[in-house]
Amino acid sequence: MDFWYEFASTYSYPAAMRVEALAAARGVAVTWRPFLLGPIFVAQGWRDSPFNIYPAKGRYMWRDMERICASMGLPLVRPDPFPQHSLLTARIALVLGDDERPAFSRKVYRAEFGEGRPIAEPATLAPILDGLGLDADDVLVRAQNPDNKERLKLQSARAIEIGLPGAPCLVTVDGEVFWGNDRLEDGLDWALRR
Amino acid sequence: MDFWYEFASTYSYPAAMRVEALAAARGVAVTWRPFLLGPIFVAQGWRDSPFNIYPAKGRYMWRDMERICASMGLPLVRPDPFPQHSLLTARIALVLGDDERPAFSRKVYRAEFGEGRPIAEPATLAPILDGLGLDADDVLVRAQNPDNKERLKLQSARAIEIGLPGAPCLVTVDGEVFWGNDRLEDGLDWALRR
Repeated sequence: MDFWYEFASTYSYPAAMRVEALAAARGVAVTWRPFLLGPIFVAQGWRDSPFNIYPAKGRYMWRDMERICASMGLPLVRPDPFPQHSLLTARIALVLGDDERPAFSRKVYRAEFGEGRPIAEPATLAPILDGLGLDADDVLVRAQNPDNKERLKLQSARAIEIGLPGAPCLVTVDGEVFWGNDRLEDGLDWALRR
Repeated sequence: MDFWYEFASTYSYPAAMRVEALAAARGVAVTWRPFLLGPIFVAQGWRDSPFNIYPAKGRYMWRDMERICASMGLPLVRPDPFPQHSLLTARIALVLGDDERPAFSRKVYRAEFGEGRPIAEPATLAPILDGLGLDADDVLVRAQNPDNKERLKLQSARAIEIGLPGAPCLVTVDGEVFWGNDRLEDGLDWALRR
């Protein structure tokens, strides 16, 4: 099944840290699919994160994130500004191989929400790539290649086609969508029903 | 702890059907607090349910409700129109005793989302009250009493003060809010930590 995630999305952080162990425990294979929520938000008339537009939702989300991260032993620092610009990171994640993407993505989330570092900056991203044994300069060039930019646009358009209401989402091979960090188990269990 | 719910809210239906057994299994006492989401939505600039305003959210929610209700063995019929006007029902629920409110509320949810019946109509509500051994005529008069109307306004204002982002919510005695049918277990488990 597919794990759809957005680097600027708060709840994608604990989900990214949980999903592989949950999938492995069930013997389910998961493909990581980074996408951009921006076009989905714009289609709904939002020019900012709904957590900023709607203060009650935002206050609730940050307190909820504190509880979730505490229960998982994860650090939590609010990125400033929030949300972070996630375009470059998403392009990098997409240009990596399916086997490299999860580790890179988790390290980005850790830098962003665990340490409050700016994820739009190559200065944040290059050391993460180097740390994974990748050639950061080469990856950054390939990430900004027109073909890869177009691929991310298509992937984000596909997210709209599927009807993803937000991030993170698990999507089963039979097209069921499970939205939210708190629905990972339900999504993976659905896959087991087949 | 407090179970805050809105009769027009879809996810409040499975939550209302689940919460008492979950609470009893943990030895946690729960007070049912009906409130109106309308003022919260208006404060966010919404004149309709966000599930109607944002089609991707709406489509996702209805499919999710189908899955949840199927897994619980609950019937699901989409009320028409959606959302239903919940003012009268909320007033009735509030004027009832704490011990009468849960059973009344579950029967209303069953009529609304299980059978598609109009919950703004005394013709739907009176037989439910009678079936619970209550005097429907007397309850309807007391529900429309100015004091009770004011009490519902205050209860809904309290929901805004607490910062409820939607319905259903569990609120612990130490002020933690857990939003959503899928967070009932987390909310009740939090109460046990004390």
